[in-house]
Amino acid sequence: MRATVIHGPNDIRIEHVPDPVIERPTDAVVRVTHACVCGSDLWAYRGVAARQPGQRIGHEFLGVVDAVGAEVGGLRPGDRVLAPFVWSDGTCDFCSEGLHTSCPRGGFWGEPGSDGGQGEAVRVPHADGTLVRLPGDVEEARLRALLTLSDVMSTGHHAALAAGVRPGATVAVVGDGAVGLCGVLAARRLGAERIIALSRHADRTAVAYSFGATDAVRQRGEEAVAAVRDMTGGHGVHAVLEAVGTEEAMRTAISIARDGGAVGFVGVPHGGSAGVDIGQMFGRNVALRGGVAPARAYIPDLLPDVLAGRLDPSPVFDLTVGLDEVPAGYAAMDERRALKALITF
Amino acid sequence: MRATVIHGPNDIRIEHVPDPVIERPTDAVVRVTHACVCGSDLWAYRGVAARQPGQRIGHEFLGVVDAVGAEVGGLRPGDRVLAPFVWSDGTCDFCSEGLHTSCPRGGFWGEPGSDGGQGEAVRVPHADGTLVRLPGDVEEARLRALLTLSDVMSTGHHAALAAGVRPGATVAVVGDGAVGLCGVLAARRLGAERIIALSRHADRTAVAYSFGATDAVRQRGEEAVAAVRDMTGGHGVHAVLEAVGTEEAMRTAISIARDGGAVGFVGVPHGGSAGVDIGQMFGRNVALRGGVAPARAYIPDLLPDVLAGRLDPSPVFDLTVGLDEVPAGYAAMDERRALKALITF
Repeated sequence: MRATVIHGPNDIRIEHVPDPVIERPTDAVVRVTHACVCGSDLWAYRGVAARQPGQRIGHEFLGVVDAVGAEVGGLRPGDRVLAPFVWSDGTCDFCSEGLHTSCPRGGFWGEPGSDGGQGEAVRVPHADGTLVRLPGDVEEARLRALLTLSDVMSTGHHAALAAGVRPGATVAVVGDGAVGLCGVLAARRLGAERIIALSRHADRTAVAYSFGATDAVRQRGEEAVAAVRDMTGGHGVHAVLEAVGTEEAMRTAISIARDGGAVGFVGVPHGGSAGVDIGQMFGRNVALRGGVAPARAYIPDLLPDVLAGRLDPSPVFDLTVGLDEVPAGYAAMDERRALKALITF
Repeated sequence: MRATVIHGPNDIRIEHVPDPVIERPTDAVVRVTHACVCGSDLWAYRGVAARQPGQRIGHEFLGVVDAVGAEVGGLRPGDRVLAPFVWSDGTCDFCSEGLHTSCPRGGFWGEPGSDGGQGEAVRVPHADGTLVRLPGDVEEARLRALLTLSDVMSTGHHAALAAGVRPGATVAVVGDGAVGLCGVLAARRLGAERIIALSRHADRTAVAYSFGATDAVRQRGEEAVAAVRDMTGGHGVHAVLEAVGTEEAMRTAISIARDGGAVGFVGVPHGGSAGVDIGQMFGRNVALRGGVAPARAYIPDLLPDVLAGRLDPSPVFDLTVGLDEVPAGYAAMDERRALKALITF
């Protein structure tokens, strides 16, 4: 089969790789019908996150079960399934607690020895625990919305929960990438009254407004802090969703939180803890909570809303490519010509 | 009157100062009967926290109302009252939300222009909002226990709440000062099943056990992390109470938290955010929550338990001094000859 492979910074290739097969009785093989490129893939593309040359890449996919191992009980060939961005056994203490990302038998698509999501097929370990079966009759447009539950929409939801978004809350979202925009959707879904998007790209700001943002702030750093405080009577917001991962974004997020409020952080941290102003957190009782989102826990919660059309994150996809065009998709996202590239097969 | 004054590092004096008087109609003047020295006072004593020469000091006191301003409605001369370690108006949004430490009209005893708690009397701003009236017939031993609600017991309770201690939880407490020990009490009161005290001073470890600790770890740093993980099946604890404030303590606290758990931090941060391992927090979904404790909000919750004898933090006082001996009390605490000095008048 063919799959996306990363050889180094700016070096994404489509190559022939071995067809996945059932290796363990708990495996399934899934033929991928929809995948996408994540903002976090760009850290590898840019050489910030190290990858072994020839490592597979991609961690968001949706497809059809092709084969199952002898111990897979809940899935059959032909089933339409969605994969969260990590696999997990579904039975350990952490999976039972809803923190599938800490499953000791879990792993991340594309890590050495595993398939990546940006390929024609994927061997799925612990298929019963990992995959979520979808109805068979979902229309194409809805499948694109469902694909976002694999990562970006679940991650935006995690940020909103971690930040403690509640009905009536005032919220700010730092970052206007796909996760930040999904954070806007998540905040609205949880009943936020006011949602301030920190967004400086006009096209993304437009998506933020369409997702439920009530205000936008174009500034960055201290100017952004001043702007958000101006908009909130000097107090800041109850809940901040941090969806960037840089020191500056963290510093801004903590500074715009209201005393007693919380920052839900889901941007993969790049740059250490210097942006975590512990003195300010202490003096104002600002909490910091979040991390890698247990998408597998959230998919069952969010799925009905997507199927019913009440939740539609699909506008985050503003570019559709075939597998051969995936390298061009990375380049488009890296150069901010595209927000998020959908890959169809 | 006489009061404790700080002139510089290691320079605590008892001096004659002006008698407090009602300056605003919302003031009260309280004649102090019990006060104490806080571990956080030692930061000033050691010169780590800057103070103006001649500034007053002490923020924990209990006494009898001597006079009230014209607008004070809930208190009368002769009332026995307890003061939390910050004053607050009791009416603003933050006070209404239970975060009295963020009251815009609030302040900290001993800050320039205000009286400190380690003196014969104190002018109390916003007396109706700040002071908690106590029953008139409380016996002496109980008053010592009540005095801890002014800061250390309320702060230990804040750490436990911030760390999310719940019935059945496994808890670790970093720091065996008075706050850490009160954190042990708070965790037990909230139903923790197992409480691991990180304590290396035998006399304090003994208090920790008497307060409900089930285990003690003498090691520090990476050895302490290994010990706690060994004791918890490799997983770490649900809730960590950080009651020191150094980088090393924060690093240890985050490292011994179970995935999905939380660190409740109440140690005044000294040393920046380098101990906040944001990568570990992200990957394992460890939350960091806490700060300056809204003691005024907690006193009404904790008071009945102290009055009924169900909660007795008074063993944290292992030295009793008169006002003239307060400098010696600081020295004893600084040299770890005493855990916490009670001042009687």
